[in-house]
Formats: sequence, structure tokens, C-alpha cells
Amino acid sequence: MYESLVRFREKSTHRVVGLISGTSADGVDAAVCDISGEGRGNLKLEVLAKHTEPYPDFIREKVLAASDGGKIGEICELNFLIGEVFSQTTLNLLSSANIDVASVDLIGSHGQTVSHIPPRTDGGNYQLGSTLQLGEPSVIAERTGVAVISNFRTRDMAAGGQGAPLVPYVDYLLFSNDATSRIALNIGGISNITWLPKGGKLEDTLAYDTGPGNMIVDAMVHYMTRGDEAYDRDGSYAASGKINQALLNQMLSHPYLKRQPPKSTGREEFGVEYAVKMYEFNNHIMPRDIIATATAFTGISIGQSIKTFVQPRGTIDELIVSGGGAYNPVLMEHIRKELPDVKVGVSDDFGVPLKAKESLAFAVLARESALSRPSNLPSATGASGPRVLGNFTPCMR
Amino acid sequence: MYESLVRFREKSTHRVVGLISGTSADGVDAAVCDISGEGRGNLKLEVLAKHTEPYPDFIREKVLAASDGGKIGEICELNFLIGEVFSQTTLNLLSSANIDVASVDLIGSHGQTVSHIPPRTDGGNYQLGSTLQLGEPSVIAERTGVAVISNFRTRDMAAGGQGAPLVPYVDYLLFSNDATSRIALNIGGISNITWLPKGGKLEDTLAYDTGPGNMIVDAMVHYMTRGDEAYDRDGSYAASGKINQALLNQMLSHPYLKRQPPKSTGREEFGVEYAVKMYEFNNHIMPRDIIATATAFTGISIGQSIKTFVQPRGTIDELIVSGGGAYNPVLMEHIRKELPDVKVGVSDDFGVPLKAKESLAFAVLARESALSRPSNLPSATGASGPRVLGNFTPCMR
Repeated sequence: MYESLVRFREKSTHRVVGLISGTSADGVDAAVCDISGEGRGNLKLEVLAKHTEPYPDFIREKVLAASDGGKIGEICELNFLIGEVFSQTTLNLLSSANIDVASVDLIGSHGQTVSHIPPRTDGGNYQLGSTLQLGEPSVIAERTGVAVISNFRTRDMAAGGQGAPLVPYVDYLLFSNDATSRIALNIGGISNITWLPKGGKLEDTLAYDTGPGNMIVDAMVHYMTRGDEAYDRDGSYAASGKINQALLNQMLSHPYLKRQPPKSTGREEFGVEYAVKMYEFNNHIMPRDIIATATAFTGISIGQSIKTFVQPRGTIDELIVSGGGAYNPVLMEHIRKELPDVKVGVSDDFGVPLKAKESLAFAVLARESALSRPSNLPSATGASGPRVLGNFTPCMR
Repeated sequence: MYESLVRFREKSTHRVVGLISGTSADGVDAAVCDISGEGRGNLKLEVLAKHTEPYPDFIREKVLAASDGGKIGEICELNFLIGEVFSQTTLNLLSSANIDVASVDLIGSHGQTVSHIPPRTDGGNYQLGSTLQLGEPSVIAERTGVAVISNFRTRDMAAGGQGAPLVPYVDYLLFSNDATSRIALNIGGISNITWLPKGGKLEDTLAYDTGPGNMIVDAMVHYMTRGDEAYDRDGSYAASGKINQALLNQMLSHPYLKRQPPKSTGREEFGVEYAVKMYEFNNHIMPRDIIATATAFTGISIGQSIKTFVQPRGTIDELIVSGGGAYNPVLMEHIRKELPDVKVGVSDDFGVPLKAKESLAFAVLARESALSRPSNLPSATGASGPRVLGNFTPCMR
């Protein structure tokens, strides 16, 4: 273990792969970048390549089945299987970009979340939250020959935090500046924001999950098309439907939206079960209208959350959007309508490909951990203090 | 991560805690020792204290329920709960021995196995085995302030091995010598042996699981007493019963016993399900006789395995027994009868308290990993080569 880290420390520029599979379990997002420097305004990130490897159908089905109550033997095996997919994704990413795997210094693997239970506040004996990401790091280290840092969320939860969101630290390094107040918005399965007030310090950063991202609409489209389609491409179903105001109001009354940040959410609250319930209980409404409504709900919940929890604290000049949701123009229009005075751009404008932002974030976080720097943000997660995140699995064969 | 390992490397003597909970899930065995030197005959182990912390009933029930098919949310939470128990065990171990936690350099935590699926040989697409140990290392590092190495078995399986047994490497360091051929036998839930031919090198070592240890008898006693008793104390039920030869023959026909080593087994083959089936299907036999028979089966299967697979390869002068089974005189007598020419002793005679041998082994293995030394034994596990085992979780708060 020692030698890997000594070699790592001796370099000033590190080539790091970041890997993540989001809550929608559609595949593994991977990116490789050269990172140098440290701290806000000084960290330099050069993206070399990105790659998305769709899960084979049987893996995606196993992940969804596991998340909805999978059993121990299946979970044990799935952890290793996902490790294989993450390894193959890394090797495909590198070979498609003609990058020698031997030039890679580290892999930061978020893994596949299959359970995330926020800390309880009911006064029971065990108030600690817990979280479980699959994708065995030993398999990734073995197949690639590269050291891995993984299991980023557990230490923050051990310190009393929500274990999420973790990307805000990276947002701070990449996007915080002295001239502009910005919000970094990522629309994955879940939507999360990081508010970076101009001239702010790390501890001035506010970050939390606003609520659903693509999760509800994805699940509805999947259900409606009997599995033929996984998401609403270009927002075309939403664009062809009409918003049902009663259903929209019902969805907007979800108690999560009113909770004070810091807060985090997941499949348990806005997953397939919620989506199918909304779809089935409203069979008097046209399917396209349900999807239009769910898209509106997603966009409005993001915008309203920013208005309710961020605007009272200070200005917002710019919204930097990343994640697959940025490709849905109907969703984006709902957000713009809620925030008419805010300039809306995408992370690509800052050298961070919007589909690769989360995988790049875990490359940056892995490097911070390997250099012994804490990278959770207690103001965002609620943890009792800063912690060095993750476990280190050495590369040695 | 780096600083912890640099500090570790700069010392010549390390204070290490080892933690393990066996397949019988009766509690956590912990030991703390000072370790110095390296290699066969040179490694010095001074045991400072040992401690067994019984699982609270609700945790033991959760572990057994999880192992017999627990669901994802339960497993996610149990991983953190077991982390809390392992942490508390460490703190109790140290405070009962008046050892300052700040003097501890490292914790080696095996965790609680809840699933272990050996590699398949059926030619399917995924032949890899998988294994899952619970006891979140981030929780242990957070509560104790000590760095943790954990998940020892996964890397060996990623390299195609059985992930077990891992203790043979430690047996080799502690017990191999030039004058005597020895077998180290550990009777935990499962029984495993390490044969150390005199003057042998690491790769001459033969090690594998012989089959059941205390697992079957424990489960039968637990079932018979409706949970009042967890094991056959001093072998008293076995001593008061008679062996049923037909049942014994049936048990001895189990196909695992005939398989060529290297091989490993677990709860899936000799767990509660097997024990209760044997007990219930033979309700014409007195319960004490069933337990006497199962005890004989356990002892004879150990002795016969040694006669079948070890004696043809070379001499055996001495058997060094460790694990809770060493306290069962009826079981020990069955083993002695099978191996009349072998001197039988306990690991205490070698400075290794027999109840603490496995936890001490994981202290030694953790130190080897922190010093970047491989510590699996491919001849024992079937892995494609030596590997540095485990993940490193830093102590930094």
C-alpha cells in the first residue's frame, strides 16, 4: 500500500480515472483526466476522454432488483459483477482514447448505490445512517493493475453526516470565484445543487439534493414503453403532453421539498415505486400528460428549491448545469422559467463535459484522499467535521 | 492516507488490534499485540490482551437472518451496526487491559462473513467467486481514531482464488520450523488446517477447510434448547449420548469431504439449514445421540481429511489446535483417535491464546498489507498469484 502512495505523492500531475453509476443504473460513466495543483482556483483539470458503458441488461435488472430488496447471495455476487463492469469500462475508456493503462495513477470509483438510509432523527438507539455502494474495488485493482479509492460516502456517515452530496467540494475547487455567485446543478437520477457565493470560502458553500432529477420521468417512460425506452429523449414525450395541474400540485406537496437543507434523497423516495404509483393512480390522465407533468414537477421542484433555500441567503448570477437532464429542453425550460434572472449555462463551458462531471468529480475526490486531504463538506452533509474519504486498495499484483 | 502509512513504516514494532467474528456469529473476538520482525522464524508476536464481546442478541439475530437471505436495506444498516460493535469491542479490549488507544498503530478487521460463494466450475459466463464481510471500516476508524485494514478476502477471489483460508500465511510465520512437521488446526464454525512440513518453504504449505467445525453441533444445541444454549459446553451433551452409526455414515458421505484441496466451505454447506435437517429428519434418534453423532462426525471428518490428503504427502509430528472446539474434550478425543501417532497440543503452548488465534492472525495480516507484503497463499486459495490483501481506511479525523 505504501509504495503506491509514495509514488503518487512524488508526482505533481496525476492521471486519474473517475467511475460512477448513478441511481438510475443505466450504465457506468467514466472519465480520465490529468489533475495538478491544489485548492480553489489552482486545481487544474484536463479532461482526456470520457466514456459511458451501458450496463448489460441482466446487470441492470440485477441492480434494480437488488435495490428493491435483493437478497444476500445476489448482493454478494452483484458486488463482484459490478466490479467487473467497472473494470471493463475503465479499459474501454482508455483503449478508445489510446491511453496506456500503465500511465494511470489512480482510479476513483464511486460504485453503484443500492441502498442509502439517511440518519434517523426519531431518537432510537441507532440514529446513524448507512449506505451501500457495490463494485468491488479489489476486482477493479486486479483487472486494471491500478490502485483504487472507493466507498467515499461511508466515512462521512460514520461521522454523523448524510453521506451526500460529495460533489460540492469539487464544485468549489472548479467553479467558485470572486466575481460571480454561481450554482452548480447536476441533474442525474436525483438533482443536487452547490451554491458558491462570490468570494466565498469552502464553509460558505451550501449544497444539497433538491429532489428528483431524471429518476421519475425515466421510470415512467420505461414503464409506459414496457422497457423499450429508458428515458424521454430530448423531452419529446413531455413536449407532446399537457401539464395536469391537480397532479402537479399533488407532486409538489411532497414533504421532502419543504425540509430544510442539508438533506439528501434517493430511490427510496422518488424511485420506481413512486413513479409507477403516480402513473397507475392517475390512469384517467393521458400517459404523455403524466410525463409532461412529472417533467414540470422535476424542473419546478429544482427552481423552487433554489428560490426557497438559496435566494434568501444571497445572490445567484449563474447556473452551471450538468448531468443527463441538461439534454431535456422541456425540463430546462421549466427551470429557466422559475429563475428568470439567472444566466443558465452548461458545465462544458468550463471544460467539464456535462455527462462526465460526476465521474470527474470522483477522480478529483480520489486524488484528494490519496494526498490525505479531507473532502467532505460538513455544511453540506451535516457530518461532525472534515474527513479523508474512502478506502485505498493497492494496485500491486 | 499517506501520512498514516509513512508513520507506520517508520516504526519497527507495531501495536495492532485484530478483530474477527466467525461464521457462528456468537460475538467478536479481539486481541491486541506488539509485532516486530519479518518472515518465518523472525516475526515476533507479543500478545498484550484478548477480549471476546458477545453480540447483543438483536445483532446476532440480524446476522443470522442476513446470512440466510437478508434484504438490501437490512444489510446496508447491518454493515454499519457491526462496525459499531467491532469499534466498541476494540475500545473495551483496550480499556480492560489499560492500553491507550493512541498507542495502537493499526486495526486489522476481518469483519463478519454473511455470504461466501466459491468460484464456479460449471463453465458459465461468470466463474468468479464472491464474498461479503460486514463491519464498515469507516465506522471503526471513526470511533477509534485508528487506521483500519479490512476486506482481506476479496482480492484473493478477484485473482481467481477461494478467498480462504488466509490464516496459513500466519501459521507459516509462527509455527513452521526445520525440526518438526506440524499441522495448525483451527476449529471455529468451520475447521481448517495448515500443514507445515519441516524445513518447508511458504509454497510447500498445504492449507484448506476440512469441513465443519463447531457449526453443526452449535446449531443443533441452539435448536434443541430453543435458543437457551449456544454450544455444547465441555462436550457434555455429546458425552452423555451414543453415536448412531447409520447417521454417522450418512454424514460422512457428504461430497465436500471427498473433494481435493484446496477447497473452502461455509454456512451454505454445513450451516443451520443442514443441522436442523439432520436433527429433524432423524426424530427417531434421541437428541443427545444426534449431538454425539454430529460431534463424532466433526472430529472424524477432521482426522480423516488429514489422513486422506496430508499423510500421503509427508510426515506429521504435531497438531497445534486453536479455536473454541479445542475446549470440547469429546471432539478432541475423536481427533486423537483418528491420529494416534500425532502429538496433539494447543496454540497456547506457542504463545498464541487459542481463542485469540484468528483475531491475532488478522492483526498480523493487516501489518503485512500496510508494509506492502502479499499475504495470500496461492497454493491454499488457488489464486493466480500472491496479492497484497485488503483495503486501507485512514485514521485521520
